[in-house]
Amino acid sequence: MTPRFSVWGIPGIPEITPNDDLVSLIAAAINAQSAADPALALQSGDILVVTSKIISKAEGMQVPAAEREQAITADTVRVVAERVHPGGTFRIVETRQGLVMAAAGIDMSNVPEGLALRLPADPDASARALCAGLRETLGVDIGIIITDTIGRAWRIGQTDMAIGAAGVQLTDDLRGGNDANGRPLHVTQAVIADEIAGAADLVKGKTNGIPVAVVRGLGRFVLGLDAPGARTLTRTGDDDMFRFGSAEAYRLGYEAALAEVKTKNKQRQD
Amino acid sequence: MTPRFSVWGIPGIPEITPNDDLVSLIAAAINAQSAADPALALQSGDILVVTSKIISKAEGMQVPAAEREQAITADTVRVVAERVHPGGTFRIVETRQGLVMAAAGIDMSNVPEGLALRLPADPDASARALCAGLRETLGVDIGIIITDTIGRAWRIGQTDMAIGAAGVQLTDDLRGGNDANGRPLHVTQAVIADEIAGAADLVKGKTNGIPVAVVRGLGRFVLGLDAPGARTLTRTGDDDMFRFGSAEAYRLGYEAALAEVKTKNKQRQD
Repeated sequence: MTPRFSVWGIPGIPEITPNDDLVSLIAAAINAQSAADPALALQSGDILVVTSKIISKAEGMQVPAAEREQAITADTVRVVAERVHPGGTFRIVETRQGLVMAAAGIDMSNVPEGLALRLPADPDASARALCAGLRETLGVDIGIIITDTIGRAWRIGQTDMAIGAAGVQLTDDLRGGNDANGRPLHVTQAVIADEIAGAADLVKGKTNGIPVAVVRGLGRFVLGLDAPGARTLTRTGDDDMFRFGSAEAYRLGYEAALAEVKTKNKQRQD
Repeated sequence: MTPRFSVWGIPGIPEITPNDDLVSLIAAAINAQSAADPALALQSGDILVVTSKIISKAEGMQVPAAEREQAITADTVRVVAERVHPGGTFRIVETRQGLVMAAAGIDMSNVPEGLALRLPADPDASARALCAGLRETLGVDIGIIITDTIGRAWRIGQTDMAIGAAGVQLTDDLRGGNDANGRPLHVTQAVIADEIAGAADLVKGKTNGIPVAVVRGLGRFVLGLDAPGARTLTRTGDDDMFRFGSAEAYRLGYEAALAEVKTKNKQRQD
């Protein structure tokens, strides 16, 4: 058997505004698509990948563009690194969702003029609600992954990653398993949710107005609604070896040394 | 039109040993697969995603497992961060390929007993040779992405990323373009090569002995053999805000402050 999956976009989802019912709008777009091509009707085991932007829009996370900087500050748990440039300060922060990303994920692309858009407050809860609603409406057991576009350390550009999820297995934990030669696989935990998020971006794109994609053929990863959410994919605690940018950590060390010297000098004088 | 693509694995590639001819072995596996299912015959516009391990094996990058630590040191341009644990020292380094990854990408999974495997010395050159060879042998214009499994800052686990490439566009540079509302997209450069690498991992896996996958439907990204390689995806210069781990940068700052104090004290005494 050849392992295989396919990915396609769902056109026909209108511009989303606050309090829109995403379950009915997405279900309607899927039904319209499958009326034209019955093979595209949703099946149990399909995974729906949804751009976080339409979740935020439905949940009323719009803020005036002029208040973008304040919104970034409000959504920031911790500044990881910043760099001042002529146009302002570029901030990489840990968001209240546990994500480390530029500008707390607040941006103005694909948002109506004059507005900026914050991330969904709890993307895993949004995913669970959408998953439960679509499972009931369409009568099939699907999984949901909510994505955002995120930069990485040491790589240029961005890829889409999973920031919310429901009803889907997020990692293929091979630790303790064996490789094809029967030898132990040591440190491998494939983050399939991020790989699926990135795959869906290849059909969703950012310029074509397609915010939802279907992934078919990975039904082995579709689980119950009580499966852990994407928050479990974030690494922000003691394990995080990059808690601060190099310049920020350097400055902390520099200031700590000077403070120690000052204390010692003071003790010597006393 | 619904944007769409599909991904499948190519079974039947034998365990690779030094000096194996990958072009003929991969072409033979593709021909065997398409004899059983003609729809799977390679077409122009297909992208072949190849696990770096089989490239390394064919290129003789095996080292005795006992010399793994020395090999990591030899392949390290710069130590980014390290953490000592009871079993040894965990090192995140910049490799000579410009990648920042644990243990310089040297590992022992899916490698015969007693051996460890280094990354291909020049994965872009490997990709170009494979791409040229397969284009000639199979008579179709395909692209090649060579992948490795890499951890990310601030996320658990690993995903597959592009470490070598030929004949394929690596990023969809939307900077200067417009979103679906016609408004400028500011900082978006989608790294499609990493998204394709991750997608292919979902069928290749690490436990099923399938080191090559085909991606069909993204032919708009297939280019000539002179397209830039995956080395262009690495960010290791002044733009890298995470050049050192937080602990390492902190220590550098701490030591710099003490050295300054020492110099000042000496000047005062003179």
